[in-house]
Amino acid sequence: MAIGIGLLGSGVVGGALLRRLIEDRQALGARTGLDLEVRKVAVRSVDKARDFTIPRHLLTTDPEEVVGDPGVHLVVEVMGGLNPAGELVRKALRAGKAVVTANKELMAARGSELLDEAAKTGVSLLFEASVGGGIPIIRPLTETLAGEPLSRVMGIVNGTTNYLLTRMSEDGAQFEDALHEAQAKGYAEADPTADVSGSDAVAKAAILASLAFGTVVHPAQVYREGIEDVQAVDVAYGATLGYVLKLLAIADKAEEGITVRVHPTFVDSSHPLAAVRGVANAVFVEGPEVGELLFSGPGAGGGPTATAVLGDVIDAARELLAGPRVTPRVRFGPGRIVPFEESITKWYVRLRVLDAPGVLAAVAAAFGQADVSIKSVWQEGRGDEATLLMITHDAKEANLRAAVASLADLDILKEVAASIRVQSDEP
Amino acid sequence: MAIGIGLLGSGVVGGALLRRLIEDRQALGARTGLDLEVRKVAVRSVDKARDFTIPRHLLTTDPEEVVGDPGVHLVVEVMGGLNPAGELVRKALRAGKAVVTANKELMAARGSELLDEAAKTGVSLLFEASVGGGIPIIRPLTETLAGEPLSRVMGIVNGTTNYLLTRMSEDGAQFEDALHEAQAKGYAEADPTADVSGSDAVAKAAILASLAFGTVVHPAQVYREGIEDVQAVDVAYGATLGYVLKLLAIADKAEEGITVRVHPTFVDSSHPLAAVRGVANAVFVEGPEVGELLFSGPGAGGGPTATAVLGDVIDAARELLAGPRVTPRVRFGPGRIVPFEESITKWYVRLRVLDAPGVLAAVAAAFGQADVSIKSVWQEGRGDEATLLMITHDAKEANLRAAVASLADLDILKEVAASIRVQSDEP
Repeated sequence: MAIGIGLLGSGVVGGALLRRLIEDRQALGARTGLDLEVRKVAVRSVDKARDFTIPRHLLTTDPEEVVGDPGVHLVVEVMGGLNPAGELVRKALRAGKAVVTANKELMAARGSELLDEAAKTGVSLLFEASVGGGIPIIRPLTETLAGEPLSRVMGIVNGTTNYLLTRMSEDGAQFEDALHEAQAKGYAEADPTADVSGSDAVAKAAILASLAFGTVVHPAQVYREGIEDVQAVDVAYGATLGYVLKLLAIADKAEEGITVRVHPTFVDSSHPLAAVRGVANAVFVEGPEVGELLFSGPGAGGGPTATAVLGDVIDAARELLAGPRVTPRVRFGPGRIVPFEESITKWYVRLRVLDAPGVLAAVAAAFGQADVSIKSVWQEGRGDEATLLMITHDAKEANLRAAVASLADLDILKEVAASIRVQSDEP
Repeated sequence: MAIGIGLLGSGVVGGALLRRLIEDRQALGARTGLDLEVRKVAVRSVDKARDFTIPRHLLTTDPEEVVGDPGVHLVVEVMGGLNPAGELVRKALRAGKAVVTANKELMAARGSELLDEAAKTGVSLLFEASVGGGIPIIRPLTETLAGEPLSRVMGIVNGTTNYLLTRMSEDGAQFEDALHEAQAKGYAEADPTADVSGSDAVAKAAILASLAFGTVVHPAQVYREGIEDVQAVDVAYGATLGYVLKLLAIADKAEEGITVRVHPTFVDSSHPLAAVRGVANAVFVEGPEVGELLFSGPGAGGGPTATAVLGDVIDAARELLAGPRVTPRVRFGPGRIVPFEESITKWYVRLRVLDAPGVLAAVAAAFGQADVSIKSVWQEGRGDEATLLMITHDAKEANLRAAVASLADLDILKEVAASIRVQSDEP
């Protein structure tokens, strides 16, 4: 029996998927034993030129037609965004159609609700491509590691920002210059806000944390700081300390609860994530029994993402044939989300100061009063251009902020020029 | 409804699994919605001391009792070896019980037959732990990448040999010294043959190749060369050339067919596999659409392996509840296995020669006659101790062997001291 496939969207990922579903139909059938037949595709324009042949009557500009088509058993949502994707997915699930989506925004915001909907009709809602493009990470988290009480998931989940930071750290580029170059190469969009502000990574962090810890984490509960203000000089100072700067999505679970955050982070240059260069993505997973795992590869692009979507399509098609599922793969339970101010981290701080006697003592005293102990501090330059650099020990985020805020009272301080969190397992 | 679990074997992995199934039963139930109940465990000795409590009536020394128990719906085989594990697994599948196994030897030798058996009764036969310990690799290959026409899978799949080679390359240790140390630390067995000879890696290579390319590759079809004869001096020479020595399992698919081999291999120090140190494992996967993926983590040990087994148990239990599967996940089709002599590779060759005029020309001529072109050649030392080192370009394995064999006719040659294959994407 052929499985009828309907596509919502036919952009970079949808187009790559469609080409393979059409051109490789025989080969896929031989390999999987499944006959996957494209029956309806919602597109923006029916007349757009495509690099493969598709019968015109399969195309429609009305996505409702795809979801409402009784010949469509499995809906692939690759249009992106919350609306109308969310309602279309919900409708499809309610009608007993399996759904495969690459939509991180949707799964982050409404994943739990939509998975409940899928469980009701016993169909699959799969979303491997929503995080990490072609890297298998959702399935490992929800299946292979289903029995592991994971303690941490930490990843480079945005290729654009990793490209920018790689250029800054390897070539000393300034942020603006790196961004213009990335836009010229197609690695950054004309409006790069979603990437550089960390919003894209926040959606992925919320999905990863929810799956890893079995507790729904909403994007609004994820602390976010982008890389717009990162300066080349700090990347360079970090390098002299043995750190590489990355935009990390970090989800931790401890006794106090779950912390999820996205921010520029210095990691030890020996950490596996430090070696992830350019547009590549990587996710690091840690648990008490399994130890440390790393998954890396292309985090975006039509080809890799379509591979992940296609894997889900094959899996969902198999499950459709096997009949309604009794036990969903993903379940959520209660769990405490720790307010970000309570989270523990280390900071790198760069201060512009007057080169006056006692400046170091005054700064150290301010940190001590806020209950932040300093691991190391040193001065670069002299006179008007003096710079004080510090690395703190582990401290509460709120105390670190209080310490930095209290510096404003010091006459010798010209500016808190940078403060960047440091991820290192040393206390 | 509780899913009755039966265990065959209670060694390092079985013991770790059993402890978690028993101690974490509530927590696992909350997380997965499944009630997994251990109902029978085949052990060597009922009286052995264990670090967890298990009712004595669940233990038996007769594995047939586990497979024959009508209350056991899912059999976990962690006894290892071909016999009697193979017949027990077959019996369990025939009786409609799902099976989870960590047995690489069994899956490499009889995987195809047993998967057919499982398909007949519509139950799951899962084996994530058979390769890469706690690293999710089987499921990514069979599910996430099910739609990708993979071209290469290449991995460090044996922790013992990777530990030995790491010691040799980082500390200049000799093979025998590194082995004694590894045995003292518990990283190598008293009889290390299966590891150092490459047999363990061969079984895993056969499984990976079969799944990646959808064609059954039997262990006997995998070329094997161990690390017993690797000398520290070659590891050091390799380092000066920018190579790191690894025991790699390499499975390639090209137009001519499939090549699968396990041998000591020089890889570029910039390759992700070069950075995999100590007992860690890693698998590198490549395809035309998805690009390059890397999976790394702990390749052995009770904790990590039990996590992989437990993930399979949860998955198999879900599928039992969902009813018999129609379409199996793994299917095999025809495919040509290329005889190893036809495979293409590069060689590093170290010759002990007389320091006579014309030695380099004579060696070069011998290689030229065998249709092997030399990328670089240079001499170390002078007089009686002269050493000639060579790196070839890509050539047929048979030609490389012929070239080296023809050197025996040269008077100036004292010994072909080493020949090691080089994995590099340069031609």
